[in-house]
Amino acid sequence: MAQVRFAISTTFRQVTSKISLGKQQTIHSEGLLSNCRPLKTLSKAKHTQVSSRIDLNENSQKNSPNLGLVFGATVLCSGVVLYNWNRQAKCKPSAIQDVSGGQVVTRDGITAGKLGDDIPKLPPGPIKEYSKAEVAKHNTVKDGIWVTYKGNVYDVTQFVEQHPGGDKIMLAAGGALEPFWSLYAVHNSEEVKEILQEMHIGSLKYDMNEDVIDIDDPFARDPQRHPALMINSLKPFNAEPPPELVVDSYITPNELFFVRNHLPVPVVDPKTFRLEIEFSSGKTKKFSLDDLKKFKEHTITASLQCAGNRRSEMSKYKPVKGLSWNFTAISNARWTGVLLRDVLQSAGVTLTNDEIKHVQFEGLDKDPTGAPYGASIAIEKALGPFGDVLLAYKMNGEELPGDHGFPLRVIVPGVVGARNVKWLSKIILSDIESQSHWQQNDYKGFSPSVDWDSVDFKKSVAVQDYPCQSAICQPKNGSEVHRSEETVVVKGYSWSGGGRDTIRVDVSGDGGKTWKVATLQKEHQTPYRAWAWSLWEVELPIPADGKKMEIICKSVDDSYNVQPDSVQGIWNLRGLLNNSWHHIAVDVKEE
Amino acid sequence: MAQVRFAISTTFRQVTSKISLGKQQTIHSEGLLSNCRPLKTLSKAKHTQVSSRIDLNENSQKNSPNLGLVFGATVLCSGVVLYNWNRQAKCKPSAIQDVSGGQVVTRDGITAGKLGDDIPKLPPGPIKEYSKAEVAKHNTVKDGIWVTYKGNVYDVTQFVEQHPGGDKIMLAAGGALEPFWSLYAVHNSEEVKEILQEMHIGSLKYDMNEDVIDIDDPFARDPQRHPALMINSLKPFNAEPPPELVVDSYITPNELFFVRNHLPVPVVDPKTFRLEIEFSSGKTKKFSLDDLKKFKEHTITASLQCAGNRRSEMSKYKPVKGLSWNFTAISNARWTGVLLRDVLQSAGVTLTNDEIKHVQFEGLDKDPTGAPYGASIAIEKALGPFGDVLLAYKMNGEELPGDHGFPLRVIVPGVVGARNVKWLSKIILSDIESQSHWQQNDYKGFSPSVDWDSVDFKKSVAVQDYPCQSAICQPKNGSEVHRSEETVVVKGYSWSGGGRDTIRVDVSGDGGKTWKVATLQKEHQTPYRAWAWSLWEVELPIPADGKKMEIICKSVDDSYNVQPDSVQGIWNLRGLLNNSWHHIAVDVKEE
Repeated sequence: MAQVRFAISTTFRQVTSKISLGKQQTIHSEGLLSNCRPLKTLSKAKHTQVSSRIDLNENSQKNSPNLGLVFGATVLCSGVVLYNWNRQAKCKPSAIQDVSGGQVVTRDGITAGKLGDDIPKLPPGPIKEYSKAEVAKHNTVKDGIWVTYKGNVYDVTQFVEQHPGGDKIMLAAGGALEPFWSLYAVHNSEEVKEILQEMHIGSLKYDMNEDVIDIDDPFARDPQRHPALMINSLKPFNAEPPPELVVDSYITPNELFFVRNHLPVPVVDPKTFRLEIEFSSGKTKKFSLDDLKKFKEHTITASLQCAGNRRSEMSKYKPVKGLSWNFTAISNARWTGVLLRDVLQSAGVTLTNDEIKHVQFEGLDKDPTGAPYGASIAIEKALGPFGDVLLAYKMNGEELPGDHGFPLRVIVPGVVGARNVKWLSKIILSDIESQSHWQQNDYKGFSPSVDWDSVDFKKSVAVQDYPCQSAICQPKNGSEVHRSEETVVVKGYSWSGGGRDTIRVDVSGDGGKTWKVATLQKEHQTPYRAWAWSLWEVELPIPADGKKMEIICKSVDDSYNVQPDSVQGIWNLRGLLNNSWHHIAVDVKEE
Repeated sequence: MAQVRFAISTTFRQVTSKISLGKQQTIHSEGLLSNCRPLKTLSKAKHTQVSSRIDLNENSQKNSPNLGLVFGATVLCSGVVLYNWNRQAKCKPSAIQDVSGGQVVTRDGITAGKLGDDIPKLPPGPIKEYSKAEVAKHNTVKDGIWVTYKGNVYDVTQFVEQHPGGDKIMLAAGGALEPFWSLYAVHNSEEVKEILQEMHIGSLKYDMNEDVIDIDDPFARDPQRHPALMINSLKPFNAEPPPELVVDSYITPNELFFVRNHLPVPVVDPKTFRLEIEFSSGKTKKFSLDDLKKFKEHTITASLQCAGNRRSEMSKYKPVKGLSWNFTAISNARWTGVLLRDVLQSAGVTLTNDEIKHVQFEGLDKDPTGAPYGASIAIEKALGPFGDVLLAYKMNGEELPGDHGFPLRVIVPGVVGARNVKWLSKIILSDIESQSHWQQNDYKGFSPSVDWDSVDFKKSVAVQDYPCQSAICQPKNGSEVHRSEETVVVKGYSWSGGGRDTIRVDVSGDGGKTWKVATLQKEHQTPYRAWAWSLWEVELPIPADGKKMEIICKSVDDSYNVQPDSVQGIWNLRGLLNNSWHHIAVDVKEE
């Protein structure tokens, strides 16, 4: 069996390296992308969920007919809970009303179609039940590493070292495999399921309390999120993907895209949703989603980055105020929508109108006083032929997820995340910038010597285009390499705002004494409109001596802008725009 | 008399500070700006030259009738030589044919008008004659400081300390005052001339050999230049203005604008000059200057910077190849011409033509093989509404000087100087970049670890937009400050390419421990089209102890791009784009 596994591992490695070259087609199950808003979408999600369940019944009937009904019922409950990890809390399992003859009928009577065959066959014998809490305790080699899949519990402790995807399997330790397998299509094979089946140890108990909602909590209707996200704040929700997953795909899967919410996620009915545009005359015009979709549809690939990305490193130099983002508050997606320029020009707005200097945006997310989230950009960005500002209703081919602005978000490519207003409800053409807190008293840079006593937000310029940035995602800071391996593969990302493409990433394995140029993985972008990041990879020699290997990366954009050497000169009291050289250190072990 | 001088000094200081706020109206004498090409312009230059001479005759007749004729004749020759410091060598004094009754008639018979009264009255007594070589030796306090003005020699050694403009007077030590006085209108007063008169010690000998041309020297017809320019290379001519003059005026006077020539300056007849445009079809169209001037005229204020600016600092870290520019290979001017966009659009060229990706430029300056200087830019820059690429025929309101591309130069604002092709003769619309040496094998950046053995120019991206830059122009590195003065005023410039405005300059007087934000002197610029630099000024406290004060500046542009801390990470074998923090040190003296 070990030999068979080795053969599979080799195949996996090939696939994995293909992924890192950007060929991966990630599979998004309906359950992952639905946020459980329209009932129609919900019913589709249910199909996938229940499909597994019924299939299990069928399998169990074939393999272990005596256990079929009991086992099937158990998995019915736990499978729904697990597979619903990404849906909104208001979606109850009770929505499923009838199951018969391999077809699912949901509450609204829609028949959800023929069911598939996609979970491992189980060995015969009595089934032990475990609660999610019990499983969660098994997340280290010492305590054993357990995972769950479609209502079953598996002990994968012995398998971890053989996992072709390396220690990424540990992201699921103590929890569900589904969210991760949905990202990596390679798991969708009989061989993988056979391997998993051998490690089966029991099934999950269903906990009725998991779906209870606190109606006084403004965040109660927030979407559920992918368990791999590293959370900086729960309410409002702010989280970033694990670095090792970031460099896995040029296009960040929606469920791993970093989330930066300032307020609770609004729940919006797309049927009644209207975008209001207020012109400089004071007149307004409202657009339904269908009205907007009459304009020519465009898809652009653009990275978004939080202005606070890498704040935690800046804090180490001197404390700052703000969420303690690590270095992956950045992601890359394909956004589909209509050009703001087209919509504004259809209403007669041109660059020659001197009264309009700024385009203000308001979201449907509101603070306790009722004030909406707001931001603005220059009219030149909105109307210029190379601005590519998009009113986006799709993200990576799917409806916008709740955390990313459903049903409409303005994508201002090349500009800091904070101006890419989510749940966009209003556009105001004005001679002044947005007067919101976030435009006036936040997201501005300051000299390193400005402190909270001397700061004057009015005197500083709002952040728009992002400066050039890069970071090392692999290996992990503090991890080990073996000197006998001679080289180490280093991977990361690089991005610059303002439509400036990355032209070079230099990586050093000796603390900056020498540099090697990384290979860039990027798509072709036209000058002045390079909105998407580059992923990069380089193989560095492990130094002949010393117990530590200090790895540094720094990038250059096509304006030959570079990253500053250190935090010293860019430190600012809000901890914004830390784009200093990224340093990590790994321990070099002898054999 | 000392008291009177002090009073004048005070007035001068007020005027000087007014200048630094951008109010200065620099006076360009005709002789300074003429490059002696069209005879009509030449005749004007002669007027100014001879006007002084005749006036001197009149004065000498009044004050010292016995010496009038001899003295007048002497000054006639030497005055012409001196005042012609900026003309082309081909303009001979013999062009002046007749002088009578206070009017000048030139070779073409034009009467140049009534003569003025603008040189100091001379004391009676015998006049001693000095050669230019003798005067040049007197350029230190130890040897005495001599200057010349309109054929006369003055010993200003005692005056230097009282000079209201500070040690800028030393720029003229051993040479002529005219080039400097033409920059500073404040000298154009009776009081100044009276002060100068007291220091008169003799007159200049005329040297017939000065106008001899070596017809085998391809640089023989190069224009004459301002003596204040700091020369890096004579043939081809490459020079930059002294830092103390750079911060004197927001608009750099033409004669102080840095000069970066790759080849001899071509002599062009504007009447027969044609600009040829080659379209992607292969067809060509020719434009005379008059044809071009039928398009709408635009004036833009744009700074140009040599990609090699500050190379000398980079060389100190590790040697590089290239001209050893100090830190003022940057200047700012108002350019007048027609938009390349308008000219191309009139011929039907649009952004939607996929065959055109680059706009190539060729100059009339040719290397020994006959290959013209060449460069190219992206079509998006040429046609975009915010590109502002100009076919310029005027610089600061005057005809383009020979060193700056007479009769036509393409100004590509925000882009490195090398793409702003001078003596522009041909534009080629193409799917590829210019194949010239300067686009393909020069003006590209490299990783710090690339050396001349490993370099591959084909793999690197041609420099276009310039990254953000700043430098300290005052005080001078190595100069002295006195602790009792408590503060020191620091001045400099800051600029970023790509239309990005400077939003902040931080200056430290303690080696980077603390920073003070400088006051910016700049004109209003619209977003994405900030082509001109900022001058800046800040008053820093002199540290309470220590013999050295280390002053550093660094700037931030409106994309929040910053300068890198050090040369270490940006060093490259060609020494390009050194935009690391600028450091100087001054000696702190006790009373």
